[in-house]
Amino acid sequence: MRDPVSFHLVRGLPSIREGDDLASMIRERLPIRDGDVVCIASTVLSKAEGRSRILEDYAPSAMAASIAEGIGKDPRFVEAVLEESREVLIDSPFLLVATNFGHVGVNAGIDRSNVGEGKILLLPEDPMASADRIRTGLDRDAAVIVTDTCGRAFRCGVTGVAIGWSGIGALRDWRGERDLEGRVLEITLEAIVDEIAGMANFLMGEGGDGTPVVVVRGLEYPRSGGRIFRPRELDVIRDRLQEE
Amino acid sequence: MRDPVSFHLVRGLPSIREGDDLASMIRERLPIRDGDVVCIASTVLSKAEGRSRILEDYAPSAMAASIAEGIGKDPRFVEAVLEESREVLIDSPFLLVATNFGHVGVNAGIDRSNVGEGKILLLPEDPMASADRIRTGLDRDAAVIVTDTCGRAFRCGVTGVAIGWSGIGALRDWRGERDLEGRVLEITLEAIVDEIAGMANFLMGEGGDGTPVVVVRGLEYPRSGGRIFRPRELDVIRDRLQEE
Repeated sequence: MRDPVSFHLVRGLPSIREGDDLASMIRERLPIRDGDVVCIASTVLSKAEGRSRILEDYAPSAMAASIAEGIGKDPRFVEAVLEESREVLIDSPFLLVATNFGHVGVNAGIDRSNVGEGKILLLPEDPMASADRIRTGLDRDAAVIVTDTCGRAFRCGVTGVAIGWSGIGALRDWRGERDLEGRVLEITLEAIVDEIAGMANFLMGEGGDGTPVVVVRGLEYPRSGGRIFRPRELDVIRDRLQEE
Repeated sequence: MRDPVSFHLVRGLPSIREGDDLASMIRERLPIRDGDVVCIASTVLSKAEGRSRILEDYAPSAMAASIAEGIGKDPRFVEAVLEESREVLIDSPFLLVATNFGHVGVNAGIDRSNVGEGKILLLPEDPMASADRIRTGLDRDAAVIVTDTCGRAFRCGVTGVAIGWSGIGALRDWRGERDLEGRVLEITLEAIVDEIAGMANFLMGEGGDGTPVVVVRGLEYPRSGGRIFRPRELDVIRDRLQEE
């Protein structure tokens, strides 16, 4: 590992609108180098990709209405969540779903901040594809991570996680590596895109002075490999949640 | 936020033994400044605190023997896990517990790497107290985070998390903050010690060339506030796991 590893905020980005060329806007403000890891908040990608929706346009299904009553949310909002989801894991006291692209999160990650009254912002439709597009636009041998914030089981507070990535492996594979004593390591797969996304999220901030793009410089990382969204058949906790 | 934020590896630490003065060993290798966040892998704290145990010394209870059979582990190892735990959340196909100090993790975070054949390494008995002691020893207005690696629900791979901290607030509180449009933010509490711990863990590495101390420089962070281990009464997922 080169040392030190540094995190750079991309300052001065304007409010993002549909159709904006984010990759160019980033490059104009911070020239990207080979090996950089460019972390982008999903919100600005969603805006650039036109994923803002008007709440009034949703017609709630009976299921949406029923869940909405249970958790005290707007039924149109719940309808939007269900349309973005392929599976409901918990429907009360909060709505935990697996999105159409496989990410498990409360309210399918739909955001009501920073988009104006009566509007919502969906997550990018396919964050892996979004990351690929940005990476191509950066025109360097760099990596891209799309971040979102997410709650966790057993622990308080939200953290940043990766919901899309390109040019970097999701997992670092320690299988076969040995410890100081020569024993094979028990820990085998490390979710490095989440570890990077968390720190980037810390630096982005959430409020009106948020900086939605953070560049990590000096990291050594695998260029490919691994998946983050746990397949159903390997998800013990999801099974138990749905057993009842 | 000052910019850039940098992560520095503390290189050249020897293999840690019981009684070692970790704070001095760190300061000798990297002079700590006010405002630094010093991240320390729990393994080296455990070694310094004499938390290595001999597997043969554990006499498995009937419960330990039964769980061990179900998951194909050494019953003495399971006994060690149970003695470090106050609650079992899942006992098959893996053993997920809440440790005596409140952290939820597989096998109570007991490590069999880097400690020699027939030995195990328990987590520090009270990682918050460990963090306080190191912080005092650093003799600067710095923060300390004790890291461990942990699996997650719904997502593949492990990440670094904080199991103890001192001189930094666990959670950044966004309550009352407003977004770009002036609306009150929905995200209210951000687990910043976990976000930092994850990135530090990435840089530490796991194998024989691991570097167990990483210093973060240039961060702005709250000096106090918040808790990480979710209280039982607010833990919907834990409730559901134990309902069956």
